Amino acid sequence: MSAPASADHIVITLPDGKSLTFPKGVTGGDIAASIGPGLAKAALILLVDGEEYDLFRPIEHDANIRIITKKDPESLHLIRHDASHVMAMAVQELFPGTQVTIGPSIEDGFYYDFARETPFTLEDLAKIEAKMHEIVKADLPTRREVWPRDKAIAHFKEMGEHYKAELIEAIPEGEDVSLYWHGDWHDLCRGPHFASTGKIGDAFKLTKIAGAYWRGDAKNAQLQRIYGTAWRDQKELSEYLHRLEEAEKRDHRRIGKEMELFTFSPDVGAGLPLWMPKGMVIRQELEFLALQEERKDGYVRVATPHITKETLYLRSRHLPYYKDSMYSPLDIDGENYYLRPMNCPHHHMIYLATRHSYRELPLRIAEYGQDYRYEASGGLTGLMRVRGFCMNDAHIYCRHDQAKEEFIKVMHLHARYYDLMDIKDYYMRLSLPDMKKLDKYVDQPEKWIAALNIIKEAMVESGYPFKEVSGEAAFYGPKIDFEIKSVIGTEYTISTNQLDFLATQTFGLTYVADDGSEQPVYVIHRAPLGTHERFTAFLIEHYAGAFPTWLAPIQARIIPISEKVTDYAQKVRQALFQVPVVNGTAGLRVDADFSSERMQKKIRDAQLQKIPYMLVVGEREAAEGKVSVRLRSGKDLGPMPLEAFIARIKGEAETRKDVTE
Amino acid sequence: MSAPASADHIVITLPDGKSLTFPKGVTGGDIAASIGPGLAKAALILLVDGEEYDLFRPIEHDANIRIITKKDPESLHLIRHDASHVMAMAVQELFPGTQVTIGPSIEDGFYYDFARETPFTLEDLAKIEAKMHEIVKADLPTRREVWPRDKAIAHFKEMGEHYKAELIEAIPEGEDVSLYWHGDWHDLCRGPHFASTGKIGDAFKLTKIAGAYWRGDAKNAQLQRIYGTAWRDQKELSEYLHRLEEAEKRDHRRIGKEMELFTFSPDVGAGLPLWMPKGMVIRQELEFLALQEERKDGYVRVATPHITKETLYLRSRHLPYYKDSMYSPLDIDGENYYLRPMNCPHHHMIYLATRHSYRELPLRIAEYGQDYRYEASGGLTGLMRVRGFCMNDAHIYCRHDQAKEEFIKVMHLHARYYDLMDIKDYYMRLSLPDMKKLDKYVDQPEKWIAALNIIKEAMVESGYPFKEVSGEAAFYGPKIDFEIKSVIGTEYTISTNQLDFLATQTFGLTYVADDGSEQPVYVIHRAPLGTHERFTAFLIEHYAGAFPTWLAPIQARIIPISEKVTDYAQKVRQALFQVPVVNGTAGLRVDADFSSERMQKKIRDAQLQKIPYMLVVGEREAAEGKVSVRLRSGKDLGPMPLEAFIARIKGEAETRKDVTE
Repeated sequence: MSAPASADHIVITLPDGKSLTFPKGVTGGDIAASIGPGLAKAALILLVDGEEYDLFRPIEHDANIRIITKKDPESLHLIRHDASHVMAMAVQELFPGTQVTIGPSIEDGFYYDFARETPFTLEDLAKIEAKMHEIVKADLPTRREVWPRDKAIAHFKEMGEHYKAELIEAIPEGEDVSLYWHGDWHDLCRGPHFASTGKIGDAFKLTKIAGAYWRGDAKNAQLQRIYGTAWRDQKELSEYLHRLEEAEKRDHRRIGKEMELFTFSPDVGAGLPLWMPKGMVIRQELEFLALQEERKDGYVRVATPHITKETLYLRSRHLPYYKDSMYSPLDIDGENYYLRPMNCPHHHMIYLATRHSYRELPLRIAEYGQDYRYEASGGLTGLMRVRGFCMNDAHIYCRHDQAKEEFIKVMHLHARYYDLMDIKDYYMRLSLPDMKKLDKYVDQPEKWIAALNIIKEAMVESGYPFKEVSGEAAFYGPKIDFEIKSVIGTEYTISTNQLDFLATQTFGLTYVADDGSEQPVYVIHRAPLGTHERFTAFLIEHYAGAFPTWLAPIQARIIPISEKVTDYAQKVRQALFQVPVVNGTAGLRVDADFSSERMQKKIRDAQLQKIPYMLVVGEREAAEGKVSVRLRSGKDLGPMPLEAFIARIKGEAETRKDVTE
Repeated sequence: MSAPASADHIVITLPDGKSLTFPKGVTGGDIAASIGPGLAKAALILLVDGEEYDLFRPIEHDANIRIITKKDPESLHLIRHDASHVMAMAVQELFPGTQVTIGPSIEDGFYYDFARETPFTLEDLAKIEAKMHEIVKADLPTRREVWPRDKAIAHFKEMGEHYKAELIEAIPEGEDVSLYWHGDWHDLCRGPHFASTGKIGDAFKLTKIAGAYWRGDAKNAQLQRIYGTAWRDQKELSEYLHRLEEAEKRDHRRIGKEMELFTFSPDVGAGLPLWMPKGMVIRQELEFLALQEERKDGYVRVATPHITKETLYLRSRHLPYYKDSMYSPLDIDGENYYLRPMNCPHHHMIYLATRHSYRELPLRIAEYGQDYRYEASGGLTGLMRVRGFCMNDAHIYCRHDQAKEEFIKVMHLHARYYDLMDIKDYYMRLSLPDMKKLDKYVDQPEKWIAALNIIKEAMVESGYPFKEVSGEAAFYGPKIDFEIKSVIGTEYTISTNQLDFLATQTFGLTYVADDGSEQPVYVIHRAPLGTHERFTAFLIEHYAGAFPTWLAPIQARIIPISEKVTDYAQKVRQALFQVPVVNGTAGLRVDADFSSERMQKKIRDAQLQKIPYMLVVGEREAAEGKVSVRLRSGKDLGPMPLEAFIARIKGEAETRKDVTE
């Protein structure tokens, strides 16, 4: 169905293709009402040829429209932006004299920065939230006005809103600005906003107060930022609050500090973690796991320096193309040396140190290699984003006819790790170049496509889930990223797998074929366990610090209930110490609590440290050669012969699978 | 007995205290002759109040003298200096037009640098050596003359000896220079020299030809350097040549290349080794050994960054005092960062990350830590002297009352390693400060002495051999060095053990005593296995590449004698691969030679690679489930059930002791 248009009418086309004719100047509100009263009530914002319009804003030309309601995920940022206005309104009602500055919607919520001498308290937060609910309930109507810039400046100055005035002063002279009224309160704003405050709903909550600088510059005045979150309904809100709580409970920085896993020192430098003994255990176990698993797949190990002469990176083309991620050079005997940002060129030098026959390939060179890359100080986050990291790296040098099989083996290796660590939610993301612009990526598009086809076939044959995305490919060849989801829904790019056909040219990496000719190799770059830093951050969050036995910094703690059993406790400790266990620390990790605290306190301490096993020993256990086993969950397994416990913990440490109770 | 002196007589006192009176101007030759004809013949040089005199040089004043003969080790450098003159004389006789430059005695021999267009050949070397023997046999007399500088310059210029003339031009005007004649040949020389060429004897040999730059500067003309060695008798010479041969056979650089243990790349930089897969095995096994042994002694592990902000080294006082050994800084966000030359300050930061109670000490923090120290490019030697190295480091933080016991434990740890690696010739060297100048070392001499006494008691109680040497102590406390001798007599300082009482002040390293007070700790610095680089260089030389089974890069090679037993060979390989072995590579290192070579060739290849076991398998072995075992020594152990061989090799790998045949 189509409708005719005239000079004072316009044609409005709905998402289903239906066209309606309206007088010029019709609003989204009118259109929604013309369709039905339910939609009129649910409508929040109108999309006019993709542009967001207030429901009360007139439409002046033919257009494709879509009415946004709470059913649409796009409504979320709108709800949040309206909520930020309502929060500012509530604050100014409750705390007169407070100046407003800016208040955007952000991921999962919104904030507003206020200028006020007295700091806001948590009690203030509760009052503001209550006032916001009042304003929403009052369902105050929204109004938009367009003013000349200078009028707006004078107006806000007169009101004492000097930050607002300063914001408008940054707008070129002669331009107009838009102001929004909610009831009597108003703010400079680009919009759009809902037709009335009631549309926001009640699924919001103020979450925290933080400091912020005006215009984000530490040289400027400090402001107070109030954060809030807002959702479409109470269910979404409470799910989010639960996720937030979980994330906080699982925050790797907090757990890392409490469990003494790692630390930072201002004297050493930001983003340069120091692994404390208990965190080091996790590194040792991960490295031993990689050693065992890579051995099965025929890898050999190397060790290479963390610095190199400039010439290596000129050869590899990392200079100048990768320079922004590298640190400034240091000088040795008048030559520039760099901290390495990756290990590949060093491994290529090892490949080049000997000749390779077709019979020797694939050569799989592995190294837990330390690298240093520049990160802006603002982006540094615990172990998640650092300046120095240690990567589970390897490079596979293979013939073209071996590439697919090797690529599949690497994917299976990932799957073995994920299975072991109970990571169920993962997929591979294949980065595709824009095929039409492939010649911009590389001067030999046919080689690029050949490599891409190998990866695609490998992905299909391996049977693991994957997605294809466009325009993110590296210039030296196609790659897949492994994306894993943590229990609280955060998605991590843990590792990357690349098929590189360029290194063979830049470095002359070849092998001697059976006919005696020199042939180019493919290089597979892979790092299934990513970096120790990021992977450990993930694992801390994944297990909330309650690591399975094989990874637990302390695996068992002996708790003697009196001094009478000190000897027996020592005997148990010694017996556990000597158990021959094949793991990353050359044995079990067991300690004993000989303090004078009461047993219940000792058990609580061990639980707080998330130690999998507490072995309570008293006179009865000593007489019977037993240990009373408690789990960190609080479960009491009762007395058990020491040998039985040893068999259990040895099994868990070596198979890396905990016995489930 | 004493003799009277007069105006024209002088008193000469002999080493035994006996005094003799001689006319002023008497020579060493005269004195020796006056004592007896045997001494007159044996005398080489005279020591006059400690100064070396030619035997024909007049003595003008009363003096204590000693006559040097070949019985005295001091004669060695004199023999070598005379030999260098005789070599130059031989060269100029044989190759007229060759200019001489400089020709000193050096450790174990001598050299002379010549300017000559045509390169010397090995045949020339033989001719020169023969001519030298002629000159020695002719027993040409030596004569010394003192000339004015300018006369000497004019003289050498006239002779066409422009390098000599240039050397003399560097001497201040107005000074005199000495010239030595051997027969008709003469040279500018400070002396002293023997009275005639015959005194040198025949225990010399020319060893090699090398390039050298005039004045050691690559911008100058290139000269030809001929090296020789000279000794007191044929026995010494042949012992030295044997040592040289052994050293060359065991040269870690040659073996490292042949066995593909490590490599260097000009693109990466000098002194920065790249550990190839087979060399990496040695690192892995050493690290696992350290992990096991340190675990027994209660160490825990950490990992810390290889760089740090300048502030850490200002705090530790490494800056500016240690600056010469450090590389230039690099810049991160406008601050100076350094590659670390040692791990201590980083470990101190870990100690400081938590509070420590007296009950928790000693805390033993270990790390195989990578460090970078400046070495002049000329001093770089294979793995022995490098610019980047990985150290078997640890720091023990202990109470004062624990220091001695901890120090003794560290010495026992050294002894365990030495015993394991069959290092029998070792001792500890205690570096003492000059006690009178102790206040120059440190502002609290009493603390220095307290620490020294702890070390001395520990050395005595431990019962291992030690020596004390003066004036080499570090400012922050006394230290002992572990000196081990290689089979060919080279002495290596492999590790250092220090008791540090200063770090507690500079870093505020304390613990909470049982009375709640903050008390300073002692820090023990120790690294029994030294650096991977130096220790591996030593081990290669020590074992001449024939590593014991636990360290061997490849432990066994399967050699099928025909294609008919390929399956069985694969079965044997798989069985060995799956043997559960507790070692540094998570299993045995076994390969198979499926090439089409003949069996004898395969055995020779394996022997050249110094693989401990060759497992020859044919149809008979396949039928009986056996392997025929050959050792790299060539010994044939005959057929053995596969299980028996597995038990043997597993035992060797885990106990680190080879079964001796």
